[in-house]
Amino acid sequence: MSDAYTPTSRTRVVREPQRGVYDRAAAYAILDEAFICHVGFTADGQPYVIPTSFGRNGDQLYIHGSAASRMLRNLDKGIPVCVTVTLLDGLVMARSIFNHSMNYRSVVVLGTATLISDPAEKLEALRILSEHIIRGRWDDVRQPNEKELKATSILRLPITEFSAKVREGDVIDDEEDYSFPTWAGVVPLTMTAGEPIPDARLLPGQEVPWYAAHYTRKR
Amino acid sequence: MSDAYTPTSRTRVVREPQRGVYDRAAAYAILDEAFICHVGFTADGQPYVIPTSFGRNGDQLYIHGSAASRMLRNLDKGIPVCVTVTLLDGLVMARSIFNHSMNYRSVVVLGTATLISDPAEKLEALRILSEHIIRGRWDDVRQPNEKELKATSILRLPITEFSAKVREGDVIDDEEDYSFPTWAGVVPLTMTAGEPIPDARLLPGQEVPWYAAHYTRKR
Repeated sequence: MSDAYTPTSRTRVVREPQRGVYDRAAAYAILDEAFICHVGFTADGQPYVIPTSFGRNGDQLYIHGSAASRMLRNLDKGIPVCVTVTLLDGLVMARSIFNHSMNYRSVVVLGTATLISDPAEKLEALRILSEHIIRGRWDDVRQPNEKELKATSILRLPITEFSAKVREGDVIDDEEDYSFPTWAGVVPLTMTAGEPIPDARLLPGQEVPWYAAHYTRKR
Repeated sequence: MSDAYTPTSRTRVVREPQRGVYDRAAAYAILDEAFICHVGFTADGQPYVIPTSFGRNGDQLYIHGSAASRMLRNLDKGIPVCVTVTLLDGLVMARSIFNHSMNYRSVVVLGTATLISDPAEKLEALRILSEHIIRGRWDDVRQPNEKELKATSILRLPITEFSAKVREGDVIDDEEDYSFPTWAGVVPLTMTAGEPIPDARLLPGQEVPWYAAHYTRKR
């Protein structure tokens, strides 16, 4: 799967340029494995970075606005944002401190985020966001009513200007350091789901659904 | 442990205010469990959010500058930043979609980041950052030489203006939804370390050190 993309001067990877990935399909795979993003925006000259959940619908991101009250105040005409998604894959322990690194996959999307106002679109965006995080859950729960839908804000951000950055694989030491007597290698890191904790007030006969019992982000 | 702190209008939690934690010790515990932050800054009117590693030294953060080349260009006099750290603890599956949530702990630090220029301070900052991420590693590896130290940028950010936000515990549904027939509960999420993968060019007799064999963020 390849879908090459030409970065702008704002999204071209400057540092460690060999880690830059300018491929839409590769970026989407990272976006789809993650479900938490960090949204950056500026208010009164101060940058803010807020963690929130997101989903992807084709070439746009839906970003849950819950955490971004400060941002939403300024949002009538859309607001410049940066949405960054990071998956951490491992600690890379080299022989020199300088060559220590991490394995990770990240995506940065720049653009103007706008609030979704149409109720039908908002409902659909909420469904996509929910299914992005827990596939299968939407049909099992009480759907949002009008009041709840009004109280929910979702932002739309087209995935137009973006880049991905990936570091994977082994330790890379300077040639002269391979004789330095220390252990070197990679410690893999993964996010794992534990045993579901059922709510104390479950109705009788409610079995743990598959998406809770076997929750994973791998596709 | 408590060390109450009065938030500014910029750090007071606006949305879900009951989740705001204004306690320095609680914020530090979150910062110490994490080692990846998302740094936000503004360049030419565009916000950027970059993931990078960090460590804490008392009341300041040391932020690895590797990923922030765009930021560093503007950094002579320091630059306004937002450093956000997020630990994800679980998916909260309620009976209504509206009450779905996540368990998480996050810290937001606002301030002016400055580059460390003094070589001795930079070396010490690098040691603190390294020990923050992998405690015990520093003494086992080849130390940075002058050239490497020059090629490393580390930012200093005082932890002066900050807030923490925490959501923990069970599902909270609207009273009338407890009769809705679906499973509800929490799926815990944790970052776990896998089996260390030794480098292919290890010298004979290099055993896996304890910090790699039993890597954990829990203290």
